[in-house]
Amino acid sequence: MTTVIDKLNWRYATKKFDASKTVPADKLERILEAVRLAPTSSGLQPFELIVVTNPAVRAQIRAIGYNQSQITDCSHLVVFAAWDDITADRINMMFDLTNAERGPNPDWENYRTMLLGMMAASSTEVRFQSATKQAYIGLGAALIAAAFEAVDTTPMEGFDAAALDQILGLPERHLRSVVILAVGYREAAGDWLVNLKKVRRARADFVTEVA
Amino acid sequence: MTTVIDKLNWRYATKKFDASKTVPADKLERILEAVRLAPTSSGLQPFELIVVTNPAVRAQIRAIGYNQSQITDCSHLVVFAAWDDITADRINMMFDLTNAERGPNPDWENYRTMLLGMMAASSTEVRFQSATKQAYIGLGAALIAAAFEAVDTTPMEGFDAAALDQILGLPERHLRSVVILAVGYREAAGDWLVNLKKVRRARADFVTEVA
Repeated sequence: MTTVIDKLNWRYATKKFDASKTVPADKLERILEAVRLAPTSSGLQPFELIVVTNPAVRAQIRAIGYNQSQITDCSHLVVFAAWDDITADRINMMFDLTNAERGPNPDWENYRTMLLGMMAASSTEVRFQSATKQAYIGLGAALIAAAFEAVDTTPMEGFDAAALDQILGLPERHLRSVVILAVGYREAAGDWLVNLKKVRRARADFVTEVA
Repeated sequence: MTTVIDKLNWRYATKKFDASKTVPADKLERILEAVRLAPTSSGLQPFELIVVTNPAVRAQIRAIGYNQSQITDCSHLVVFAAWDDITADRINMMFDLTNAERGPNPDWENYRTMLLGMMAASSTEVRFQSATKQAYIGLGAALIAAAFEAVDTTPMEGFDAAALDQILGLPERHLRSVVILAVGYREAAGDWLVNLKKVRRARADFVTEVA
């Protein structure tokens, strides 16, 4: 059996993509679907994905992304954009959707009331950070789903998020970019990282037990 | 082929665990290993896992975790604890480890210098938030790896993090709990959620394209 561990060992942060290769639509869809199905706190899914293939837009993004070649050379650039705030309207939208699909439930309504109160007692910044964390669960799902499709990925935080938001018109959608994922196929010959050993702390330095 | 999507559809936030069932050691190890292998920004792995099986400690955690039964009924409770700060010492530890495994590399040293400068110009809170986000990539990996093992999981943010830190002695280790994952086997008969439809926003409300 090909395991998740095999796939995580296969993948690496691709430094050089083959710009001539495109990820087939069915593979890309399964990667996006894995993100859509990934769990999030209270089921809010407090983020969206923007898939950028337009070359001119990608060139603009590269200019505010430390000129990293993956941004223009990959097949699809997936922007993870978190809700800029977890508002009451957005919470109600997701709870109403759940009611529409499952039917009403008194416990769920009690939970809605509790969550609305808890969020109202928080701050916009804390709510945005909470949304951001959920996007990173989805990022983990995307990386693994891509590896199962033999598709390479590079998660990237090195970009000017405010500038990317402007390029993509995210402020008017009340979204903020938090991380981008280059998706495509490695060009092994030009990639300094492809043959280097994956380095992780030893289990003993990463896991402890309270037994 | 059993796909990541199948596994994500199979899994759900288990509300009732069967306290009589223990996840076999080899399965648990593969779940933890998936987290260890998951990528993190700059390869820092800025978090640790604490696997809690001790019943008395679990009872203490349940008391500061909204009395959620999963905390005591699951097989293994995995605490994701982020570095409380991304210090120069910690950055150097990881870069030194990489050098020890791969040999020295001038580009890598330049990157170390850049990262040390960037982090020094940041704040403890921003650095902690950055560490937290990386832990959530690992959370995504754990959820999927567990589903491939037919092991149930419930990610939980509903607990008093400062109190949990005290219970586990995390402050002296310069760690802060950020999310906990109950790992075990569902008790379907007592679980109100197990048979309810998984609700997600439609693709059209989650993914947009810039083509």
